[in-house]
Amino acid sequence: MEKERREEIVVRSEILAIIRGRLSDRDLAEKLHDYHEHDIAQSLDELTKEERIRLYHILGPEWISGIVSFMDDPAEYVAELEIPQLAAVINKMDSDDAADLLRLLDEDTKSRLRPILTEDVKADIKLIHSYEEDEIGSLITNNYICIKNTLTVRQAMHELVKQAGEHDNISTIYVVDEKNTFSGAIDLKDLIIAREHDHLDSLISYSYPYLPDHAKISDSIERIKNYAEASLPVLNAKKEIIGILTAQEVIEAVDDELGEDYAKFAGLTAEEDLRETTGISMRKRLPWLIILLFLGMIVSSVVGAFEAVVAVLPIVICFQSLILDMAGNVGTQSLAVTIRVLMDEDLSARDKGILVWKEMKVGFCNGLLLGGLSFLFLGLYIDFFKGYSLLSAFLISGCVGTSLLLAMVISSLVGTLIPLFFHKVKVDPAVASGPLITTINDLVAVVAYYGLTWIFLIQMLHVA
Amino acid sequence: MEKERREEIVVRSEILAIIRGRLSDRDLAEKLHDYHEHDIAQSLDELTKEERIRLYHILGPEWISGIVSFMDDPAEYVAELEIPQLAAVINKMDSDDAADLLRLLDEDTKSRLRPILTEDVKADIKLIHSYEEDEIGSLITNNYICIKNTLTVRQAMHELVKQAGEHDNISTIYVVDEKNTFSGAIDLKDLIIAREHDHLDSLISYSYPYLPDHAKISDSIERIKNYAEASLPVLNAKKEIIGILTAQEVIEAVDDELGEDYAKFAGLTAEEDLRETTGISMRKRLPWLIILLFLGMIVSSVVGAFEAVVAVLPIVICFQSLILDMAGNVGTQSLAVTIRVLMDEDLSARDKGILVWKEMKVGFCNGLLLGGLSFLFLGLYIDFFKGYSLLSAFLISGCVGTSLLLAMVISSLVGTLIPLFFHKVKVDPAVASGPLITTINDLVAVVAYYGLTWIFLIQMLHVA
Repeated sequence: MEKERREEIVVRSEILAIIRGRLSDRDLAEKLHDYHEHDIAQSLDELTKEERIRLYHILGPEWISGIVSFMDDPAEYVAELEIPQLAAVINKMDSDDAADLLRLLDEDTKSRLRPILTEDVKADIKLIHSYEEDEIGSLITNNYICIKNTLTVRQAMHELVKQAGEHDNISTIYVVDEKNTFSGAIDLKDLIIAREHDHLDSLISYSYPYLPDHAKISDSIERIKNYAEASLPVLNAKKEIIGILTAQEVIEAVDDELGEDYAKFAGLTAEEDLRETTGISMRKRLPWLIILLFLGMIVSSVVGAFEAVVAVLPIVICFQSLILDMAGNVGTQSLAVTIRVLMDEDLSARDKGILVWKEMKVGFCNGLLLGGLSFLFLGLYIDFFKGYSLLSAFLISGCVGTSLLLAMVISSLVGTLIPLFFHKVKVDPAVASGPLITTINDLVAVVAYYGLTWIFLIQMLHVA
Repeated sequence: MEKERREEIVVRSEILAIIRGRLSDRDLAEKLHDYHEHDIAQSLDELTKEERIRLYHILGPEWISGIVSFMDDPAEYVAELEIPQLAAVINKMDSDDAADLLRLLDEDTKSRLRPILTEDVKADIKLIHSYEEDEIGSLITNNYICIKNTLTVRQAMHELVKQAGEHDNISTIYVVDEKNTFSGAIDLKDLIIAREHDHLDSLISYSYPYLPDHAKISDSIERIKNYAEASLPVLNAKKEIIGILTAQEVIEAVDDELGEDYAKFAGLTAEEDLRETTGISMRKRLPWLIILLFLGMIVSSVVGAFEAVVAVLPIVICFQSLILDMAGNVGTQSLAVTIRVLMDEDLSARDKGILVWKEMKVGFCNGLLLGGLSFLFLGLYIDFFKGYSLLSAFLISGCVGTSLLLAMVISSLVGTLIPLFFHKVKVDPAVASGPLITTINDLVAVVAYYGLTWIFLIQMLHVA
């Protein structure tokens, strides 16, 4: 990591040196052409406002439009552009980047931009904004090459050269028929090595995979990964191609997707970042905490029912936390496994049966082992440190071990069934399962533990 | 999801119909050309072995090599190919896919293949196998276009057409100097729209981003995402290009990366899937469970120290689980936030300070609120159902509320500092933090709760 960071810092200082090195505009632009737009974007904040404004004029709208898409915080910099300049930039941007940028601008700026933006750009942005943010349509870009299926190979090549000026996602060329409905795709490689008189037809895959515009992103990721293409076409209900989804967008989506699950898994309503206010963070965490508090109170009242047991045999409380924690851990493991399985593949009823059965087996085997360990070690502990006779000591630890086994089996079952249920009723298992499982497991563990103690130790064996 | 699944099933049945539809080999091949290799791969298991073997002969090595990379379980099918056929396929495969496939073959098959595989292929596979699986080098492919920087635009175009036959990742063309060291990259789009007499030089970005072959994948993902390229070059210590990393590979990597973290977070040593045996699953879960068991025993012995408190005032045990669970939940939230922050950006010492301070503030504010709630509700509960005087009831619930606040603040602190520490000493926070935090939080909570009860309720106020 450090190594690569240094790498980046070197690159940025080179860029700064070029910009500040009294070069003619032409030489400056030519030298900067060697650098990646991301690196240029990153070095902007080390420049003075004046230096940046000069740079904007040298680079021109097309180039700036590329750089803006790599800015961490574009609003700040685009504010330094005059409205006509900004409009020119937006007119050159990919529709997805333009749509993102527009979201950051204030109403006043937008209203002044509107008259200067081209109709196409406005339409493209409107289209993207028309989708829910969890729908594929919200991730599309207009940066792709599209040709009619009636062209010859030669015409197709010409069309490609023409459109390539505007659009740089060229590795797949999308083909539509005269009614403008999607008919297939051509691998640029095949077009390049094709002979002039080949039929374009022979280059087109007519059953090329596509994504419906309203499909849920989270549901499509697996499919997108399977096809492993640089981009996939996105079609509307009329099977018209409205844009493409690029692998770069998918990387972002996969990362967000799992980041969100990760957060939900920990009882956060949304992912947090470093810079947000305490208030916002609180609001993301409190909902589950409050629910958990009241669920916890229920557990408390159940424990309360066993007060008598504790009054007679206080030592049993020593191991309550042990059993509850272990039940919780096992439940969480089953939960995590189940959620990931649900995430990666869609299960048949039979698969679900297999999963539940497997989780129970694992829970039982692990329970036997851990139950045995606690029987042994706790028995000795109680005998040595708590001054109980060896017999009563092992009767108590036996009780602990047995309830541990019982609790672990039931926890694995609960940890599997609940997410499966939530998935079935289309509630995100990651967000809903966690707390519910903790509580149910706690209840199960408490009842198993104190119940067994009461019946065996106190009623039958009179250990106390 | 369902909708798209149906979509895929339709496509597969079309493929089956074509294969079984008594077509001449030529027509069959031509028709299949319309379908994505992933879909062809997926329909193989619905064919009989005879049908598949006929299909292999019709498709030929080149095409099969593409399809193999989309098979869920290639070993099964490649076993149906004769060794010379298999060798021909592997010779045509991208080096990354070939390397993966080789791992699945038994020694006997490999030794029979070795003499027939071309030297280049063997070298490429050996190179990939020479890297640790968490290093960038293990993800590279040889499927890229590479040209000398001395060529003219015309020659470059010729070279492209020549290499495109073998390699289909053509959207970026990589450029090396006569000493074969990486000098930069050309955007294919720029080459396509360039004029014959333009200088190739003017098309090359000489400071193109690259990845060091030994860089850790997990450390590089953020950087790769930032550049948002279809592929990035991977260089060895001599700055020679040894392969490229494609966005498709990155998608897999990001998904695995986070999947792994997700698993570790739940105390699994590795991600599990549906089909593995109980034994393997057990081995993935037991390590942490055993550690947790013994950590839990430590907590138990600490609780044991407070047996006296419980003996005098049994009601206090009702709320132990409540306080421990809440402390655990808060700790987990802080842990999740911290891990994600560490994952997404590399923090300066100052950032870390900000993070810790923020977590403590959030912990305190939430603690105040939840502590207040428990004071109120539990006070009433104890008074009504446990028959304590209103005063003692609220003294007890006050004790619970206060320890809850205390426990939550410390838990957020612990939940932030421990992952930061593990990150510092280069241990994966996700895998190490979870259990440690649970235990420390339990200890803190137990001591806070029973300590307060002992001092205030029993010593000072003689509630019992």
